[in-house]
Order: sequence, then C-alpha cells, then structure tokens
Amino acid sequence: MPDTNPRILLARRPRGAPVPDDFRLEEAPLPEPAEGEVLVRHRFLSLDPYQRGRMDDAKSYAKPVPIGGVMECQAVGQVAASRHAEFREGDWVLGGFGWQGFSARPGKALIRLDPAEAPPSTALGVLGMPGLTAWVGLRDIGEPKEGETVVVSAASGAVGQVAGQLARIAGARAVGIAGGAAKCDFILRELAFDAAVDHRGDLDAQLDAACPGGIDVYWENVGGAVQAAVFPRLNDFGRMVMCGMIAQYNTAPGAAAAGAPPGPNLGPVVRKRLRIQGFIVGDTGWRRYREFRAEMLGHIGAGRLRWKEDVVRGLAGAPAAFIGLLEGRNFGKLVVALD
Amino acid sequence: MPDTNPRILLARRPRGAPVPDDFRLEEAPLPEPAEGEVLVRHRFLSLDPYQRGRMDDAKSYAKPVPIGGVMECQAVGQVAASRHAEFREGDWVLGGFGWQGFSARPGKALIRLDPAEAPPSTALGVLGMPGLTAWVGLRDIGEPKEGETVVVSAASGAVGQVAGQLARIAGARAVGIAGGAAKCDFILRELAFDAAVDHRGDLDAQLDAACPGGIDVYWENVGGAVQAAVFPRLNDFGRMVMCGMIAQYNTAPGAAAAGAPPGPNLGPVVRKRLRIQGFIVGDTGWRRYREFRAEMLGHIGAGRLRWKEDVVRGLAGAPAAFIGLLEGRNFGKLVVALD
Repeated sequence: MPDTNPRILLARRPRGAPVPDDFRLEEAPLPEPAEGEVLVRHRFLSLDPYQRGRMDDAKSYAKPVPIGGVMECQAVGQVAASRHAEFREGDWVLGGFGWQGFSARPGKALIRLDPAEAPPSTALGVLGMPGLTAWVGLRDIGEPKEGETVVVSAASGAVGQVAGQLARIAGARAVGIAGGAAKCDFILRELAFDAAVDHRGDLDAQLDAACPGGIDVYWENVGGAVQAAVFPRLNDFGRMVMCGMIAQYNTAPGAAAAGAPPGPNLGPVVRKRLRIQGFIVGDTGWRRYREFRAEMLGHIGAGRLRWKEDVVRGLAGAPAAFIGLLEGRNFGKLVVALD
Repeated sequence: MPDTNPRILLARRPRGAPVPDDFRLEEAPLPEPAEGEVLVRHRFLSLDPYQRGRMDDAKSYAKPVPIGGVMECQAVGQVAASRHAEFREGDWVLGGFGWQGFSARPGKALIRLDPAEAPPSTALGVLGMPGLTAWVGLRDIGEPKEGETVVVSAASGAVGQVAGQLARIAGARAVGIAGGAAKCDFILRELAFDAAVDHRGDLDAQLDAACPGGIDVYWENVGGAVQAAVFPRLNDFGRMVMCGMIAQYNTAPGAAAAGAPPGPNLGPVVRKRLRIQGFIVGDTGWRRYREFRAEMLGHIGAGRLRWKEDVVRGLAGAPAAFIGLLEGRNFGKLVVALD
C-alpha cells in the first residue's frame, strides 16, 4: 500500500479544447476511512465526454468541478481497507471515485461487482453508464423496429457500439458512422453492423449508399457536419435520439449560447412528424439498472453483444487520453487502468 | 338553385408567396349526384395554412392539387338534393368539398352536423380540424401541467386560440404571441390568456416579462424569428409541439431543402432533455374525434372556451383572403361564407 494518493485536479477552466495545463497532478495524503466507510483502491477510471461539461462553470444538469477539485468520474476498484460490515478487503466495487488512486467512501455509496459475472471494467462500459445510456435511449426514444434503418454516430465509441448492436438485436439495420478505416472495419467485422460510413470521406454519398430506404432512427453523439448530413435523410416518423453533440463540447461556454453554429431548419419536423428528443441517463436510467443488466448479460451470454475497450495505463496519462477522446482519437470505451 | 357551379382552380404553381393570378375563378356546370350521392350547397369554406402546401408539386404527406384542379378545403354545407336514403334536403354536412359553390358526394363521405349543438361553421374551427389539431398536439406532445408556462404562436389563429385555452384549462399559464395590439388585446381579454406578446415589438424583452420562469411548452405555428426567440428560453424537459412553420410556407419548394434558413443549434436539446416533435392531425386525430368533440362541447357549455371567426363573404374573395392568411392578416379562424 502506497502512503500517498495521486490525483488529478482541475487547475483552471479550459478555453475551448482542454490542454494539459488545465489539469494538475498532485500527491495527496492517503484518505482515512471513517466508521461505516471503506478505502477503495481504484483499478479502472472511466473517461467520458460528459466530463468536459463539468470543467465549465456553466448551468447544466450537474454541478461543475470546482477549480482545484478532483476531476469527476466513475471508477471500479477493490476494497483496500474496510470499516463497513458488508465489505471485505479485495471486494470489487463501482462508484463515483474521481481521477485519483484511492478514495474513502461510505459503504452505501458503493455498488458491489461480481467479477465472475463479467470483467470488472465492463461496469464502466457495456454494463455501465455508457451501455445503460444506449439501452435507455433506444427504449424511450429510438424504439427501433424490425427492418428499420438506425444510424449511429461515434459508432465505435462506448455508447455507439452498444446502441448499434442493440438496434440490430431489435431487428433493425445498423449503420455506424466512425472516423477512419480501422474503426469502420471494426464496426462491420467485429460488431456486425450492416454498413459503415467514414465521416472523413464523402458523407452524402456514403449515406446514400448505406441507407437506400432513408433513416428511421438517428443516434446523435456528435452534432455538426454529421447531423447536417443525416437530418434531410430522416424518414417520416423518424426519431433523433439526442445523446450528445461532442463536436461542440469545446465551444467556450459563453459562446455556446450566442455563437453556436446553427442547426437544421425545423420545417421538415412537421411534415415528416419527426421526434427530436434529448435525455440524460441519470434521470431514470439507474432505477432500471437491474433490468438492463439482466438483459445485457443475456445478450453477452448468447454471443450477440461484443465490446471494445481502449485502455490507457497510468493516472498520469488521463489528461492526454481525455483530450484525445474529445477529438475522437480513442478507439472503443476509454478507461485508465491503474496499477 | 343556380344552374352553374362557381369554383376556384389552381391556375399555376406559385413561386414563393401566392398571387391572385395563381388562381382562376370559373363557372362549371352544376354537378349531378349519382345514386347514393347528395348534392351539397356549400355555406362555409375553410381556409387553412396547410392548403399552401397543396399548391406545390413537392413530396409531402398529401398529394398536390393538380394544375387546373379545384383548390382543396373542408367545407360545411346543406344538402340541396339527395339520392341517399339517410340525407334530406336542408341537412347540414361537413366534407372535403373544395373552393366551390356545390359538390356531389357519396353519402358515406359526409359527416352530419347538428346545428342545435353548435353553429355549423364551428365544424371548420373550434370543433373541427383546427380545434382537433390543438387538442391532439397538446395531448400527445405538449402535455401541459398545472403551473407550467405554455407559449402559443399565432395565438389568435384557428389552432392557436384553442391551444392556449386548452392549456389554461389544464392549469397552465398561457402566453400568446400575435401580431399587433388588437390581436394581443383579444387574446388577453376575450380568451383570458395570462399574457400576450406582440411579435412586431421586442420579442426578447416581452418574452422575458411574460415568462419569468422560462417556457415549458412551445406551440409552434410560425417558425422564423419567433422560434429563435423562444428556443433558448425553454426549460429542462420542455416540449416543442411542431404544428406548422407558416413563416416559411412561401419558400419556393426547390429552395426549401437547399436554402431554408437554419434553425436553432440542437446542443441544448441534450442538456435540457427537450422534445421537439411534429405531427399531422390526420394521422390519428379523426379516430379520436368523438372524444374530442364531447370534451370541447363540455368546455363550451361551461363557458370555458371561446372562439373567433374571421368571415369573408363570397367565393371570389377566397384567393385574397388566403394570401392574407399566409401573411397573418386574418384575425381568427378564416372562413368564406357563401350565399
């Protein structure tokens, strides 16, 4: 057991895209668990696009990280010392532990993981928040039906890979949009999507070829040029599942209201009876976690659902990996493995 | 009984805003009802914004009126001659009769009206398609709740006046947007909306004053500058009921796809969990007509629901009235009364 706790703080609020100097690595004293708490040694940290929003001091659905505060994330770890009757050393747990090596948390704030059921890191991806996001968004908004065409942006990412596969399981055609040949190849061959579109190429021509019958459901992770290309191809009664618009997360918060690039003219929404709906998984998702997990484990057991993790080793690499995530440089669900 | 049938044809497809020469008035022979048909003498024609779409040869949810065809509309009339056992001379009926003085229609295509229940022209407005549109859109998409703020554009129009009053009946605050002092005065005093906003004035300042707690539901009839002003004021979980965007109905159909003005950046849709949904009353509305009518008659009987018609006299005035409707010059539900 080390005697200090390495942690990454928000050094200052980014202007536009975060840069390394927006973060600061420091060694803090190892936290002491109080009665009823456990000391958790973190094994895998989850890096997710929503964390960019926490770096801004803007009104949102969650509070910003304060300057000098530990960067927020979910993480998976093992109990290193327990002052809670239900947890023992070595137990695997999930919680909101932050970008750091250790944390002391009340036992009731932890979710216990069974490593025999699935590798613990999946609690941050396919069986965690990103997978739950895909499941909730398709269930509540996308509602893919047999034979429909579902287009998923950021399709090799943590949420997109699950959304596309669940759409296929529902009997729909899954078309994935990703950046570059390797990702497109992956979603076609490994995830068995029906078609792949490389957003670095001619989007219009590729979408025409991949979606000859138009688009019934669009899973929105990115915004920008991809949204502009997909929107006019939506069929009557099409649904846009608004999960994220990463292409503009680095817009300065002041500029977001005044200077954000315009979106599609909404005229066709009436004529085509489109539904464009945003959601945040935290609103209702965790209440349905058991149902989600049981269904997902069934798909995994039957060989219907695969996943890919992009594993970065060592806490010090987290800022660069996170900056890369916002630029689409990750390939699969991004996690930081700690030793 | 005259021996000819005056009717207004689509002379040519408009380029942008319709002009009088896009229409042609002609005298046709009086139609002869076949066995099972009735001859209807039209009393009130309904002029509605959707008819602008029928003038274009563009893909839509309904077929365009052919060049040289009679302009489409619903109308209320009286049976002038019957070859159908269930209809007698003088009966009031509703149907898709077109911009003309008479039509011969199968009895099964007619809806019988009881003039003792409500004035027959209301079957084109508060108790007809526009009222049903308001009722369906609020029920399925807007879902106003007690204490919420509902903003209705084109609030003195056929749909808007009903939408705002139904929102109030549901316990919400109704804020109407209309053009000019007379319409704003009307929606405040006659329809008892909670606030009125004149879109010819400073929209931002007026919306701030009228909606201090933000906007929960926006009833979209117009698009353009009004939509741009309302969108950033939507609250978390806000709904946009996309009923129409009359501000761009006169965009040339070729230009509609390529040159339509941009809409709002959709980024806030995610963070605020907004729902933007279009609908067409014909999809499910008429199946629910009985329930709608019973509810509306209850409100009318209890003095909770009022309406205003803008009555133009004589078929020859229909084109100018319709052109004015697209410019917001009507005041209330626009009908043409025939003698």
